[in-house]
Amino acid sequence: MSEERNIEHQHGRDYYHDPPPAPLLDMAELKRWSFYRATIAEFIATLLFLFLAVSTVVNYKEPNYTDKCSRVGYLGIALAHGGVIFVLVYCTSGISGGHLNPAVTFGMLLARRMSLIRAAAYTVAQCLGALLGVLFVFCFTNSDEQQSSEGVVNVVTRNYTKGAGLVAESIGTFVLVYTVFSSADPKRNARDSHVPVLSPLPIGFAVFVVHLATIPITGTGINPARSLGTNLIYRSPTEAMDDLWIFWAGPFLGALAAAVYHKYILRAGAVKTLKSFRASGSSGGQPPV
Amino acid sequence: MSEERNIEHQHGRDYYHDPPPAPLLDMAELKRWSFYRATIAEFIATLLFLFLAVSTVVNYKEPNYTDKCSRVGYLGIALAHGGVIFVLVYCTSGISGGHLNPAVTFGMLLARRMSLIRAAAYTVAQCLGALLGVLFVFCFTNSDEQQSSEGVVNVVTRNYTKGAGLVAESIGTFVLVYTVFSSADPKRNARDSHVPVLSPLPIGFAVFVVHLATIPITGTGINPARSLGTNLIYRSPTEAMDDLWIFWAGPFLGALAAAVYHKYILRAGAVKTLKSFRASGSSGGQPPV
Amino acid sequence: MSEERNIEHQHGRDYYHDPPPAPLLDMAELKRWSFYRATIAEFIATLLFLFLAVSTVVNYKEPNYTDKCSRVGYLGIALAHGGVIFVLVYCTSGISGGHLNPAVTFGMLLARRMSLIRAAAYTVAQCLGALLGVLFVFCFTNSDEQQSSEGVVNVVTRNYTKGAGLVAESIGTFVLVYTVFSSADPKRNARDSHVPVLSPLPIGFAVFVVHLATIPITGTGINPARSLGTNLIYRSPTEAMDDLWIFWAGPFLGALAAAVYHKYILRAGAVKTLKSFRASGSSGGQPPV
Amino acid sequence: MSEERNIEHQHGRDYYHDPPPAPLLDMAELKRWSFYRATIAEFIATLLFLFLAVSTVVNYKEPNYTDKCSRVGYLGIALAHGGVIFVLVYCTSGISGGHLNPAVTFGMLLARRMSLIRAAAYTVAQCLGALLGVLFVFCFTNSDEQQSSEGVVNVVTRNYTKGAGLVAESIGTFVLVYTVFSSADPKRNARDSHVPVLSPLPIGFAVFVVHLATIPITGTGINPARSLGTNLIYRSPTEAMDDLWIFWAGPFLGALAAAVYHKYILRAGAVKTLKSFRASGSSGGQPPV
Repeated sequence: MSEERNIEHQHGRDYYHDPPPAPLLDMAELKRWSFYRATIAEFIATLLFLFLAVSTVVNYKEPNYTDKCSRVGYLGIALAHGGVIFVLVYCTSGISGGHLNPAVTFGMLLARRMSLIRAAAYTVAQCLGALLGVLFVFCFTNSDEQQSSEGVVNVVTRNYTKGAGLVAESIGTFVLVYTVFSSADPKRNARDSHVPVLSPLPIGFAVFVVHLATIPITGTGINPARSLGTNLIYRSPTEAMDDLWIFWAGPFLGALAAAVYHKYILRAGAVKTLKSFRASGSSGGQPPV
Repeated sequence: MSEERNIEHQHGRDYYHDPPPAPLLDMAELKRWSFYRATIAEFIATLLFLFLAVSTVVNYKEPNYTDKCSRVGYLGIALAHGGVIFVLVYCTSGISGGHLNPAVTFGMLLARRMSLIRAAAYTVAQCLGALLGVLFVFCFTNSDEQQSSEGVVNVVTRNYTKGAGLVAESIGTFVLVYTVFSSADPKRNARDSHVPVLSPLPIGFAVFVVHLATIPITGTGINPARSLGTNLIYRSPTEAMDDLWIFWAGPFLGALAAAVYHKYILRAGAVKTLKSFRASGSSGGQPPV
Repeated sequence: MSEERNIEHQHGRDYYHDPPPAPLLDMAELKRWSFYRATIAEFIATLLFLFLAVSTVVNYKEPNYTDKCSRVGYLGIALAHGGVIFVLVYCTSGISGGHLNPAVTFGMLLARRMSLIRAAAYTVAQCLGALLGVLFVFCFTNSDEQQSSEGVVNVVTRNYTKGAGLVAESIGTFVLVYTVFSSADPKRNARDSHVPVLSPLPIGFAVFVVHLATIPITGTGINPARSLGTNLIYRSPTEAMDDLWIFWAGPFLGALAAAVYHKYILRAGAVKTLKSFRASGSSGGQPPV
Repeated sequence: MSEERNIEHQHGRDYYHDPPPAPLLDMAELKRWSFYRATIAEFIATLLFLFLAVSTVVNYKEPNYTDKCSRVGYLGIALAHGGVIFVLVYCTSGISGGHLNPAVTFGMLLARRMSLIRAAAYTVAQCLGALLGVLFVFCFTNSDEQQSSEGVVNVVTRNYTKGAGLVAESIGTFVLVYTVFSSADPKRNARDSHVPVLSPLPIGFAVFVVHLATIPITGTGINPARSLGTNLIYRSPTEAMDDLWIFWAGPFLGALAAAVYHKYILRAGAVKTLKSFRASGSSGGQPPV
């Protein structure tokens, strides 16, 4: 660890380079099969994510469960969300980048890694997939307990203020999108070409630990499509729809913060521009810092 | 993430190529030791899988267990199935491909990754291994509670319809076989040559999360050999044999859906044929989409 | 998956080669620092393994624990053993091979991967390390409950026969040593040069799943040094020492079976000799099967 | 496994080389953006670590939690600490080395992997980050139970002596820093260039298993910044501040022991000097042992 200085000096400026920013309106994408394929993959994967995650939650609310200690509890719910994200990001990362989450897509758009058109298509596909996945579980079950909104929808629990819920969602999504940025960092890729393959594991763990920390606060959204799907289908008369804005605003704020942190602090956007300007006279003899 | 477009364009059509489809009736295989070795490896691994997984289930039903909170519960059972699959796929992937499951073998046959003869031999070996592994645990234990079928066999629980059970098994197997296809994708392999080594981990996690989601619905089969072994040995008079067809039809349907999804959407079978036809006049200057 | 045939044919006989068998009595080793360093590393790692694993067990037997549902239970104990093995095999694999277990050392000796002198030194170091690690925990605690042998020592529980305990230990160790062989396979290494680095993870998982399956049968030894350490220090008047032979005979039988399975079936010792004899006339144009 | 001898002999002395020791007072660092960026990354990551870990602890003390079996228990708390460390070390390892812990920084300083100035800056950043992360959770919650120090602060529990607590913290930190050294070993890196990327996983597991083993003894510090943050903010009138020295002395002792073990036994500092002196006459034909 802590050897980054040496590596950086050794290889200098040319060791890696950022891909050029994606154009905002790349209409040519609409003519490529890879665009539709990626959108379909996001739709299917988000559907499977919600089906498996919500199924895990509702099945352990089942009234005939006499042996309560066999239930999976919050640990199992957190593992289900993190584990499913690991598996499905692994499956889709080569096709669509494996977002499954409008907040991740928003972060990648802010970093100019994808066009606005692609981001919009992903977001629509994710929301439709989430709605269908949740609807599927809802129709599957028939007991009142399993169809109740408790534990399924994302609402701020009564011990916390709305502001606390918003902050919890923002920080949780910050951790997730920070992990995604770290795994997709071209600097890291240059050094370790296989990182994209390994990245689904820390991304899944990020989802897992954020669930452990925030399930008792908000039920843990950190994914606007997930919150939309559960809160629309399992709506409780009062709260679920009222709080929904928190689960869109919070994650988008967190993704914005992660994009800013990554670009201006970690990749040192401002500093680099300055340095390359200052160093433009020298002929490479000086390390680029 | 989401950089697949660039990579694809950069390297063009020649960056990877599918292996030629395996012949359906490859009688030459019968003369190779590697064929028998692979079949034996599938037999032994499926036997060990069932022995460890079923042993975990029955041991925690033991009547003298007074401290119920120490039991592993559904979380432990899901971890046992997923963990054993991870370990044994890791051990056998270099020998037989590491299927341990007739539905996975069926998916690989549909994708023309193996001959019909090999698929048949694997399936027989898996079923025999599963039967022996379960029989072993059954003979090992002697209390009535441990020898009861509860929690061991795959049946649709009373809260769900047979149709729901069939769908749950199909979707669960779809997730598993989709993960296997993703890890064995030659396109992915070309880019990251070490993927086959890492693939047992997401495959194990896929088994784990499907168990978390569907244990309360069907006890989670997603493996016809597992269901055959447990339901034949731990038969309950009425249900176990009646429901067995669900645990063969469901997984095979899921594997079929995964093979179709992989070939026609993700690998874009139809589109590719069309495009290569249209592009046959051009001389490589144009990206192959 | 299942592409091993192609890879094998493509690269032919020269793609990998076994290292020459280690001499049985390599007295030159005694002059190398790497020999002593490896022995010390085995001693320290086995000490740490027993300290952490036994500490996890005894701390959750503490009498003042009122909230029983907070206890880690069998799942936590299994995770502690598997997790510690993962971490310590990772730390020591580059120094000593990361055995931490006389049964693994025995398996490697049978496969001629190490000299008899080295195997003997490792075994002594492992047993001393285990004794010290357990003694450390014993002296650390002062309540009767924590110093009782229950849950710590390896004995066959009253629901099982001695024979069942012996078989459970053999199969459990077979799974562990089979995983070690799979990760150390030179054929696999040739294809995926980074496997040795990844191998601690499946090895740790193998320990974890065997614990899940066999804790209620024997308390899970699968490591003669562990059983020796716990049963000597936490001796209960009658059983602990009487059963100790099971926890040496079982693991050694399992390691023997794994070595035979690996050499004669998976590496096809007998068949290969035959084939290379038959093929000695041909000039490489024919695949070696 | 156990093939290290061959590899060593094969490649000889030149196969890897230690980076030169970092200067103690490298004032030039103060002019580099990478120095400030790394310090900021340590600050943010330690803040996030404490926020997520302490949030997991306090949320499950919430008084309205009627269903105790759903609680995550000690297993969930251990998984939260280990999982968060895995994710955040993954995110920061390319920027700052991913310490998040003054004891790890101390170990790296002892091994001359970083300058004293950098070590001091990291330590201050980690402590400030920890304080802010804990303060954040404290202000977030409003019930007395959640704001009580129980389970959050690091104190030696009444069943153990102060000495036992000090030893437990030392051994726990030894395991953590030993794992960090193993993953950052230049010898290992030369052989397997991708290890730095994989290292966060065993590091996270080391934190996890040490928590499983020592939560009932000290609440598990093994991180002076964590103990400072929790014990200052969640101070209980008597114990929390009195015991704080244990959670600084213990981890620093453990890190010192790990540095000594790594340098003088595993890297064979003393032996190597001797051998290279003796072998200085020969011209490379003889293996360096």
